[in-house]
Amino acid sequence: MRMLENEIYEWLKSCQINTPQYKVFKLNEDMGVDFYPVALKLVSDKVVHKTDVGAVVINIPDEPTLKRAKREMLCHLCEQNIHVDEEDKLIVTSMHAGIELFFGIVNDACFGKVIVFGSGGIFTELFKDVCFIDSEAGDEEIKKAITQTKISRLFTKGFRGKKYNIELVVDMIKKLQQLDVEEMDLNPVILSGNTLTVVDARVKQGRSNIVSKQIKYIPGIFSPQKIAIIGVSEYEEKIGYALAKNASVHNEVYFVNPHLKDLFGRKVYNNINELPDVDTAVLAIPANSITDVIPQLAAKKVKHIIIITAGFKEAGRDESFLKDLSEKFHINIIGPNCIGIYTNGINLTFGTSDIQPGKTNLFSQSGAIVAELMDKAALQNIGFENIISVGNMVDVDFADLINSYPGDDPINLYVEGISNGKNLLRAIRKSKSRIRIFKAGKTGVARKAAFSHTGNMAGNYEMFVGLLKSTGAEILDNVNGLLYSYSLNKIVVITNAGGAGTIMSDLISDKIYKLSLDEIAKLGEVLPKHWSKNNPVDIIGDASYERYLKALEVIDSFNADAIYVLITPQFMTNPRQICKLFVEHNFKTKMFPVLLGGEMMQAAKNLLEENKIHYFEELTEAVSFL
Amino acid sequence: MRMLENEIYEWLKSCQINTPQYKVFKLNEDMGVDFYPVALKLVSDKVVHKTDVGAVVINIPDEPTLKRAKREMLCHLCEQNIHVDEEDKLIVTSMHAGIELFFGIVNDACFGKVIVFGSGGIFTELFKDVCFIDSEAGDEEIKKAITQTKISRLFTKGFRGKKYNIELVVDMIKKLQQLDVEEMDLNPVILSGNTLTVVDARVKQGRSNIVSKQIKYIPGIFSPQKIAIIGVSEYEEKIGYALAKNASVHNEVYFVNPHLKDLFGRKVYNNINELPDVDTAVLAIPANSITDVIPQLAAKKVKHIIIITAGFKEAGRDESFLKDLSEKFHINIIGPNCIGIYTNGINLTFGTSDIQPGKTNLFSQSGAIVAELMDKAALQNIGFENIISVGNMVDVDFADLINSYPGDDPINLYVEGISNGKNLLRAIRKSKSRIRIFKAGKTGVARKAAFSHTGNMAGNYEMFVGLLKSTGAEILDNVNGLLYSYSLNKIVVITNAGGAGTIMSDLISDKIYKLSLDEIAKLGEVLPKHWSKNNPVDIIGDASYERYLKALEVIDSFNADAIYVLITPQFMTNPRQICKLFVEHNFKTKMFPVLLGGEMMQAAKNLLEENKIHYFEELTEAVSFL
Repeated sequence: MRMLENEIYEWLKSCQINTPQYKVFKLNEDMGVDFYPVALKLVSDKVVHKTDVGAVVINIPDEPTLKRAKREMLCHLCEQNIHVDEEDKLIVTSMHAGIELFFGIVNDACFGKVIVFGSGGIFTELFKDVCFIDSEAGDEEIKKAITQTKISRLFTKGFRGKKYNIELVVDMIKKLQQLDVEEMDLNPVILSGNTLTVVDARVKQGRSNIVSKQIKYIPGIFSPQKIAIIGVSEYEEKIGYALAKNASVHNEVYFVNPHLKDLFGRKVYNNINELPDVDTAVLAIPANSITDVIPQLAAKKVKHIIIITAGFKEAGRDESFLKDLSEKFHINIIGPNCIGIYTNGINLTFGTSDIQPGKTNLFSQSGAIVAELMDKAALQNIGFENIISVGNMVDVDFADLINSYPGDDPINLYVEGISNGKNLLRAIRKSKSRIRIFKAGKTGVARKAAFSHTGNMAGNYEMFVGLLKSTGAEILDNVNGLLYSYSLNKIVVITNAGGAGTIMSDLISDKIYKLSLDEIAKLGEVLPKHWSKNNPVDIIGDASYERYLKALEVIDSFNADAIYVLITPQFMTNPRQICKLFVEHNFKTKMFPVLLGGEMMQAAKNLLEENKIHYFEELTEAVSFL
Repeated sequence: MRMLENEIYEWLKSCQINTPQYKVFKLNEDMGVDFYPVALKLVSDKVVHKTDVGAVVINIPDEPTLKRAKREMLCHLCEQNIHVDEEDKLIVTSMHAGIELFFGIVNDACFGKVIVFGSGGIFTELFKDVCFIDSEAGDEEIKKAITQTKISRLFTKGFRGKKYNIELVVDMIKKLQQLDVEEMDLNPVILSGNTLTVVDARVKQGRSNIVSKQIKYIPGIFSPQKIAIIGVSEYEEKIGYALAKNASVHNEVYFVNPHLKDLFGRKVYNNINELPDVDTAVLAIPANSITDVIPQLAAKKVKHIIIITAGFKEAGRDESFLKDLSEKFHINIIGPNCIGIYTNGINLTFGTSDIQPGKTNLFSQSGAIVAELMDKAALQNIGFENIISVGNMVDVDFADLINSYPGDDPINLYVEGISNGKNLLRAIRKSKSRIRIFKAGKTGVARKAAFSHTGNMAGNYEMFVGLLKSTGAEILDNVNGLLYSYSLNKIVVITNAGGAGTIMSDLISDKIYKLSLDEIAKLGEVLPKHWSKNNPVDIIGDASYERYLKALEVIDSFNADAIYVLITPQFMTNPRQICKLFVEHNFKTKMFPVLLGGEMMQAAKNLLEENKIHYFEELTEAVSFL
C-alpha cells in the first residue's frame, strides 16, 4: 500500500531525512498555519498525479490566499469528477526555495536495490540527468556516480559563484542505501545552503530484492593440468574434431569416444572409466547424455567442466538440471552453448587454432563474437592471455571468473544480458584488473508503467553503464575494442593530411598529448616550415619515408604512450615504402599505423601483414579501444 | 553600452515582448508596490552578476519583507566592498511562476545573427539544452530547431498532462529575428499558460553582422566542354602528368606546356595564345605565374578555372589577389590547393584514374580526404556523379556549388571550417538534393569570456550541427559515410550469430524494419524452429548457403529498403560459399554483405572483390551513412 504524504514525512524524519513543516486538515476544517509561504496539497489515494489535476497549489503567501486556494482546488476537483470525501485530507507544507534535486530507490531485476540521483522537478523526466548507485557502493563509488550527472557541477566546480557540499548528497544516498522499500521517488528534494529537504515523496513499501548467490572462487579454472575431451571426432565437419585438433598440441589431454582407437597420433579412450584422474573436461556430446557423463567425470575427480553442447536455454529447453548436477557433484560448469576456453596456452575451443599469447583476457557471452574476434586477432597478430566463452552461464558467470582470475592483467567482457548484476559489481570492486565492457542490446524494451519514475529507469542500458562505470569499469562503444587492452592517455598523431589528423584529434579528444614548446622546436628542426606546429603533427602532403622516419624518431623521444601514424594516398606518397619504417626500425613508443584509402594502400597492407605488424584501416576502428 | 533593467523592459515592451510589472526606486526612497509577490534587484552598472553578490531577492510576499530585504541587500553589498551611490537604483518586479526558458541572440563570425532557444534558469549552462535558429529561418525550420531541445517536449508531446503551444516560442523567435542587437540573453523567460514573460535580460547594443556575399549560380561548372590543362608534364612524379593522364581520355582537352610537343598521343600547346577558345581551365603551374596566366585564359573566354597549385593561405601566404582576378575577369575559381574536379564523366583530378559513374556528389574541403575516399571507392566499386575538391575556396564555395548543381541527386560535403555559414544555409534551403555533411574539427577552441552566455555558444560544433540540421541537412559522424548516398529507412538484418545481430540492431535503432506476423510465418516456413522470429533474423550458427539463400529470397519479397547480410566465422560456416549467392542471384532489395572476422573471411572477401561486389568488414562502418 502507498503511504500518504504526512505518513511519509514522519517516516523520513525517523530516518534522519529533512522534511518540511506541515499541518494536516480535514476537508471541512478551518485552515491556518504560522509558517508562510506554504503549499497546499490534497492527501488522498484517489489521485495519483496530483499536479495534473490541480491538487497542488504552491507559493501561497498568507491565510486569505490559502483559504481561497482550498475553495478553488475542491471546486476544480469536482469539475473533473474527482469526488473527495471524509477519508481525504488537505496538507499545508512550508515552501522551500532552492535547487530541485531527485533521489529515488528502485529494485532492479538484475542489480537489486539501486539508488538514483539527479536533477529534480520536471527535469528528471525531461533531461534524464540521473546517475545510478549500487546499494553496496562506498563513498568513492558514490561520488564517481554523482559526477556522472550534469547537476553535479554544483558540487564539483561550483556554479555562478556558489559551490555546494557534495557530502550532503553522499550522506543522503547512504541513508537511502539503508532503507528497505520497493520503490521510492523523492522529488523534488530542495538543496539550499547546507540543507537537503524532501518536499515531495512517493513510496511503495515492500522488501528490497535480496541477491544471494555466492560468488565462486575457482582459480584452478585458469590452470587446467589434465584434461579430458569427451566426444572427439575423426570427421572434420564435427566440433569434436576441431576441439581435439586444437587441444592435441598439449601433452596431458585425453580423448574420449566410444568408437575410436586413435586420433592425431593419440590414444582415444572408449569410455570415461578408463581415463586417469583429470581436473578439467570438455564436453562435445549430445545434450541427453550429459546427465550420465557428469557423475562418471566426478568419479575421475574432475573439478571443471566446459559444456560446448548447444540446444539448451537458447533453444527454449530447460537447463536447470545442469546447475543441480554442478551442486550435487561440486563441479564448476562453464557453458552450455559455448565455444570453449583458451587458457595457460592451451586451446580448448573449436575456434581458430591460431591464438597468439598476450596480456588480454576476453570473457564473452557470445560464442560467435568470440570466434569472430579470435579470427580477427589471428590475422592481425593480436594476443590473449585467457579467452572464456561463458555460453549460457548456467553455473560459472562473469563475476565468478573475475573473482577467480589470479592475475592483474586487463579483462574485457562481451555482455549481452546478465541475471546477477550485483555480483558483477562486487567482483569488479575487488578485482585488481582494468575491466572494459562492451554491452550488446542497448535498446531493450523498458519496463512499462512502473509505479515511480525511478521504476521506469530500471533495466535500461544507462543504468548498466552508470553502475559499472562507478565501480571503475570502462564501457566500450565498439565491439572491436575488446581485442585490445592498452592503457593510453597521451597520444601523438602524425599525418600527411590535415583533415585526417583533425578527425583523429576529434576522436581522441582529451587523450591527445600536448607538445611542449621545446618539443615543437625539436620537430621544427626536421620538418618543413609549414608543418602544423602542434599535435596532430601534420608533416604535409608530400611527406616521404625519410620525413616520417625523422619525425617519428623525434616523437619517440617524447613521453607519449602511443603514436598513431596516419598515411593517406597523396600524390607523392609511396605508402609501402613509408611502411618499411615499421619493419626496419624499433621505437620505444607504441606505434599504430593507420592506412587510409583503398587501392593505393594494398601493397603497404601486404607488407605489414607479411611482417605481422598490426595496422588499422579506419579512424573510428583505430580508436575503438580508447 | 549596456542598458539598465528598466530600460530593457521598456525597449522589449516596444518590441511587443511581455515583461513584468515593475517600479524603480532611488536608494533612499520609501518602497511599496501593489503587485506582490515581487523580486527586488539592484539596478547598477557596478555589478555584472547580480545573483552572485546577493543583489537579487525573490519571492518577497509583502511590504514589510520588501523593506527588510532592501536593508539586508544594501548591508550585504557594503560588506563585499561594493559601494552603491545615487546613480544606482532598486527595481521591484512582479514574480512570475512557471517554466523557465531561455532566449538569446548572438552574432556569430560564421553564421551572422543566430537566435538561441532552450531551457532557462541554471539549466541553460548546466545542461546546454539549447538549439540554434538562423535569423532567416522560416516557421518550419524554427520548429525543427525547437524540437532539437529536450525542453521542447513541453510543446510537442506535452508533459504531466499539460501541453503548451509551440507557436508562443515560434512567435518570440520571429520577434528576435527582427531585433538589431549585438548580443542578448533573455533568461529566464517564464512560460505560464499562454504567456511568455521575460523576467531578466542582458543586452549588448550594436549592429548585427550583415552577411553580404552574393551566392553564385554557375551551372556550367558541372558541364565543362572544352578544357585546357595548363602545366601538363611528362614526368610521372609531377601532378601535371597525373592530371593530363586522367583527362586524356576526353576528346576536347587541350594540354599546355612551353617545352613539350606531345603527351599521351596528343598535341601540347606551347602557350595559351595558341589555344582555341575553352570554357574550363585547370592550372598546375607555379603560384607566381598565375597572375599572368589568368588574363590570357580570360582572352580565351574561359569561365571556370580550377587552381590545383598549393602554397597559399594554408602555407601562410596571401591569396586575396586570386579573388580580385576572378572578379576583374568574371571568372569562377575553384581552389587553390585542391586535387581538381570530376564531373560529367571527365576526370580533372590528379587522384585515382579509376572513378566509377554514380549518383553521389562529393564536395570536399580537404584534398587528402577526397583522394582517400576516391581510392577507397575505386576498390569497393562505389560510383560518383560529381567530385569537387574545393580547396581554399578563395572564390567558389560550398554554397555556390550547391546553388549551381543542376540535378537533384544527393550531395555529400566534407567541411572543415567555413567563413560564410549564412550562405551555406541559404543554398541548402533552396536545394532539391538530400544533403549530408561530415564536419571535422569538432573540438575547436570556443570564444572565451563573451559578454553573454549566448555569446559563449558561438562558433561551436553544436551550433553548426543545429543550424544545418534545421535546414534539413543530415550530419554524419563517420567520414566514410560520405562515400554513400542511400536513403534507407526500413532495414532487415540477417545473421548467423545472435550477438552480431543485436549489436547491428543497436546501431540501426529506429530504422529496423518491423516484420509483420505474416512475414514471420513466411520466414518460419524456410527456417529452423529456433530462428529469432524477429528482425534481426537470426538463422542460427549452422546456417548454410541454402539457408541464407532461402531466407533472403523470402525477405526480398518484403517491403524493406536494404538487407544487411551478416556472416560470422562459425564452425559450420563456409563464408566463400555463402557469398556466392551475391554473385549468382539478383535481388530487388539492396544487399550489403557484412563479413565479420579475419582469416576465415579472406576467401569470401576475395570472391566479392573479384566480382566487384561491395561489402563491409565492420559493423560501425556498415552503418556509417545511415
